[in-house]
Amino acid sequence: MSKTAKIAILGFGTVGSGTVEVFYKNKSAYEKSTGQIFDIKYILDMRDFPDSPYADKLVKDFDIIVDDPEVTVVAELIGGNTFAYDYVKRALSAGKCVVTSNKELVAAKGAELLKIAREKNVNFFFEASVGGGIPIIRPLQQCLMSDQIISIAGILNGTTNYILTKMLKEGAEFPEVLAKAQELGYAERDPEADVSGGDACCKICILASLAFGQHVYPQDVYTAGITSITKEDAEYASSWGGVIKLIASAKKLEGLPPEARRLEIIVSPMFVPFESQLSGVDDVFNAILVKGEATGEVVFYGRGAGKFPTASAVVADILNALKSRDSAKKLSWEDSGHDDYVINYKSQKHRFYLRLNNANKASVKKLFGEVNFLNRKNEPENEIAFITPEISGGELEEKCKNLKISGKMPVLEL
Amino acid sequence: MSKTAKIAILGFGTVGSGTVEVFYKNKSAYEKSTGQIFDIKYILDMRDFPDSPYADKLVKDFDIIVDDPEVTVVAELIGGNTFAYDYVKRALSAGKCVVTSNKELVAAKGAELLKIAREKNVNFFFEASVGGGIPIIRPLQQCLMSDQIISIAGILNGTTNYILTKMLKEGAEFPEVLAKAQELGYAERDPEADVSGGDACCKICILASLAFGQHVYPQDVYTAGITSITKEDAEYASSWGGVIKLIASAKKLEGLPPEARRLEIIVSPMFVPFESQLSGVDDVFNAILVKGEATGEVVFYGRGAGKFPTASAVVADILNALKSRDSAKKLSWEDSGHDDYVINYKSQKHRFYLRLNNANKASVKKLFGEVNFLNRKNEPENEIAFITPEISGGELEEKCKNLKISGKMPVLEL
Repeated sequence: MSKTAKIAILGFGTVGSGTVEVFYKNKSAYEKSTGQIFDIKYILDMRDFPDSPYADKLVKDFDIIVDDPEVTVVAELIGGNTFAYDYVKRALSAGKCVVTSNKELVAAKGAELLKIAREKNVNFFFEASVGGGIPIIRPLQQCLMSDQIISIAGILNGTTNYILTKMLKEGAEFPEVLAKAQELGYAERDPEADVSGGDACCKICILASLAFGQHVYPQDVYTAGITSITKEDAEYASSWGGVIKLIASAKKLEGLPPEARRLEIIVSPMFVPFESQLSGVDDVFNAILVKGEATGEVVFYGRGAGKFPTASAVVADILNALKSRDSAKKLSWEDSGHDDYVINYKSQKHRFYLRLNNANKASVKKLFGEVNFLNRKNEPENEIAFITPEISGGELEEKCKNLKISGKMPVLEL
Repeated sequence: MSKTAKIAILGFGTVGSGTVEVFYKNKSAYEKSTGQIFDIKYILDMRDFPDSPYADKLVKDFDIIVDDPEVTVVAELIGGNTFAYDYVKRALSAGKCVVTSNKELVAAKGAELLKIAREKNVNFFFEASVGGGIPIIRPLQQCLMSDQIISIAGILNGTTNYILTKMLKEGAEFPEVLAKAQELGYAERDPEADVSGGDACCKICILASLAFGQHVYPQDVYTAGITSITKEDAEYASSWGGVIKLIASAKKLEGLPPEARRLEIIVSPMFVPFESQLSGVDDVFNAILVKGEATGEVVFYGRGAGKFPTASAVVADILNALKSRDSAKKLSWEDSGHDDYVINYKSQKHRFYLRLNNANKASVKKLFGEVNFLNRKNEPENEIAFITPEISGGELEEKCKNLKISGKMPVLEL
């Protein structure tokens, strides 16, 4: 047996305490399967936990951890971009492996942190940052080893998926479903990051960076949330033959060499046809559809959040980091080489669902050409809903200038 | 750059030629991302391919390959258990890494071959043996690193899934759908291994061996095929609230320590409720549902067969083997320690769907207790269909001794 490998946990909140719990529950199994001895030496948190069985491991000063040469792996489970960024940078710079569940951090600083990890020959893993307990980062890497990824589309936020599922199935409106979700603990007291699409945006940035090799920053991605979706939109989706889902998607423009690669990325509620595997993903579940040139479509499905699913992904990363610490097996991507790596939303083409008031079929046809008109029960006389032909975001904006729009979103292409 | 790593391909059939094609298409990308140079040195096949661009690599004598110290990885894509077994054993014994897509071989000889690989400190990988291009073996390993697997249930055979989908959706009978599937190339001219459940059985043996740590042999697994399913059964499934799928499932008996572990494994058409993620997996697609203690349910979905999906999994294994050849990262399980590791079908408990002729509701209730009677359109007077309470396979057999059974299968429990 080799000497004990020491781990430090940053943050003793939901994921942090779940990680400690999962770790100690299975510690002897890990040691048996790897032939190594592991232990958690420190848990960093600003709060006091006098009654915790781990009280003796709790520290408040990160210096103790970063200066302790015994600590080989640091798990950052604080979240956000301030302390977390500082601690992760210092841990990597000190030659420690880092694992994190922090999607904001990886989406904002991934390229920089991966560069430090490369220079220091240590691992920086973040399986838990996307899809909770669903293995997606490593399987994506595995697909990538032998194949070229064409596109990724996912339902990456469980809270909004729960809300949209309830709206569709129970014909309820957004505010009441949100209140219910908060009551059940599925939505935060401040639901902004979820319902605005910001959380899903961070996650698609991470997946796209990995799949296409250059960092995608959240501020470059057009992101629309679900707050303005109504049950009327859901009824039109249903009559059209699909559902509304908050989709985060990334695809590479065809026909360009890797050095001139450009991406279409968007986070938006979309009309998703029943034929799509993503249409049946309900409640708090997540799913990620990866399309590869040789592999075809592969879908990964499961609980995208939650204490124990996320904690088990963190522990898997810790064990992977310890296992390969002498032969750093690195995830990697570069900082983007050119400013227009992500194509502006106004130039991205989609078919769109539109719901208008005070318009008529003749004027709609004149404006958009051959559209597909939709119906719903008890549709008011002055309401008209349809699917446009393929059109760019900019053109659509132009055409809609003088229209009274009550609903608008793209259609997910299969 | 290190010296060129040489690969040998055994078998130049569908998967073999796909592997060569995928490899050369992406060769420069692999070399760029790994900093290694790769090439295929030999392709072994008994046939002649005078017009192939790879004609100069073709050999007929395996000795040339096994005796060539330049060859570091051998990809076995012949299939079956005769030549493939001999070649794989000799390649591993000669200190070469081996990757294979051969489910019969891994299911029959996995424990033995993994032992040789361990002794020789080389890799033996078989990602392509289950689920074609769906990454499942490594993600399962990844789940396993931090979590305990409770159960696995999958649709592991695309041919039978295509046939059952058509029977349900088009109300067609088995023989005509099989003929259509053969015409389309979805079913082999000799469909025995698919329709008997034998192919799915090999795959669940591999997954169960990996998930639960001890080898499961196909002959220990109760395996029923789909040949006796009729469209009447499909109609009853539909009225019950589900579909019929060929399910391969493995779960560990709760409450036993790892050293006394016992498994319930079965391959059988089953009634699958619409609520299950597996119910919506149609046509030639495969899906594998893994339930972990901490992770919860995770589903992997995609094309379970086909030239390029399978080839891309083979190439990923080749690259993984080359990448880690100095620090063999081994998949592993042991030979089973006790004879009764797999629980006999007669002792496994399920709820069952039964369709009887010449019975009445009163006698059924007397025999089985509280059953759930099912109906279908144009049901003949002497037909009676129902779902039994939970009952063991042996008890069911006993109770059915004097009944005229026209349909019988277990219900998949969620």
